[in-house]
Amino acid sequence: MTRSIAVILSGCGFLDGAEVTEATSTLIHLARHSAKTQVFAPDGDLSTVNHITQEAKGDARNILEESARICRGNIQALSQLKLADFDAIIFPGGFGVAKNLCDFAEKGANMSVAPAIAKLIQEAHEGSRPLGFFCIAPALAAKVLGPQQPMLTVGALDGTSEALASFGAEMVACEVTDFVTDRLNKVISTPAYMYDDATPYQVFTGIGRAIDELIEMA
Amino acid sequence: MTRSIAVILSGCGFLDGAEVTEATSTLIHLARHSAKTQVFAPDGDLSTVNHITQEAKGDARNILEESARICRGNIQALSQLKLADFDAIIFPGGFGVAKNLCDFAEKGANMSVAPAIAKLIQEAHEGSRPLGFFCIAPALAAKVLGPQQPMLTVGALDGTSEALASFGAEMVACEVTDFVTDRLNKVISTPAYMYDDATPYQVFTGIGRAIDELIEMA
Repeated sequence: MTRSIAVILSGCGFLDGAEVTEATSTLIHLARHSAKTQVFAPDGDLSTVNHITQEAKGDARNILEESARICRGNIQALSQLKLADFDAIIFPGGFGVAKNLCDFAEKGANMSVAPAIAKLIQEAHEGSRPLGFFCIAPALAAKVLGPQQPMLTVGALDGTSEALASFGAEMVACEVTDFVTDRLNKVISTPAYMYDDATPYQVFTGIGRAIDELIEMA
Repeated sequence: MTRSIAVILSGCGFLDGAEVTEATSTLIHLARHSAKTQVFAPDGDLSTVNHITQEAKGDARNILEESARICRGNIQALSQLKLADFDAIIFPGGFGVAKNLCDFAEKGANMSVAPAIAKLIQEAHEGSRPLGFFCIAPALAAKVLGPQQPMLTVGALDGTSEALASFGAEMVACEVTDFVTDRLNKVISTPAYMYDDATPYQVFTGIGRAIDELIEMA
């Protein structure tokens, strides 16, 4: 049975948008499962960062337009997403998640989630649809679904996982090639580039295993 | 034995730079082989294209800076590449190859290759190093190595393959999940997104097989 999966991107490039290897690995593994995939991103601005110097460039780019680079233009504005059309939702990581989908990068444990993203996660959860969160994206799940005490990973147990635990999440340590599944809440997470020194193949492997689980659950 | 592989990017996004899935698949498969990988790109300008409307935006971005988005900033200017440090060179595709590394997109069979790229390919060939060309990148090989009649593919036999044949290349039809190897000239090619309707997994698979061959040959 073909599954329809929505993938939410946050730009293109790990310092101001979606992490490219994580986003691409997600789309490759969904195609491996012959899933019907649609990519979405918010139609708003991001603050551009030079990916060599890691310095802010001071100009804005459109999140939707930049995300389109990853998926050859096959993308829709997040506002067009109809939850009834999809069996599961995936959020790849990158600082774009922590800057453009919520403000975790700036505010840490005092973060809030963009209303459209919070509504999507809440409604998908209420509709019993599996949700995948990679790299730093579990911050979204922890904040929105905290009262349900979702089991999540952001890799090692550290300051980041402590902030997420403060929302109610049960944080678990996990290797880059592995994943954590909360079958009660239907939430799946994998650390990906939360390990800075991970190789592209390790990230690809962990995301592949997480997606195998998500497809099985969908 | 660990192989050192140089990967040459041409931006970030298939309409004005490197095709993101092709570039990422290349880095994932090289990591699978535990190859020591270094990414390079020219330090010059590209003409930005909106990846939703496919229209020119009229502004310039730096090829090296944009390429850095794909590889988390682990990149060097092409001018820094020392051929003696590498066992093989790979060129993923995207219109960036046809616009920023040569002018095939504008001039077709009347194209010329950027001098630094032509020199790199010529010297790598003379040094008996395997060269991988994905998607439209075989245009570079056909133009520079035409007198050696390299066997290459750009997918189907069509106007593009005819232009490359005019340089002396022997053009072969090839499926997206397969590759073409010229063991005499040590040149490997795979069609990737020359097939517009290819899935990310098909592109990933074809590039994986091409890289298996390149690593074996290196």
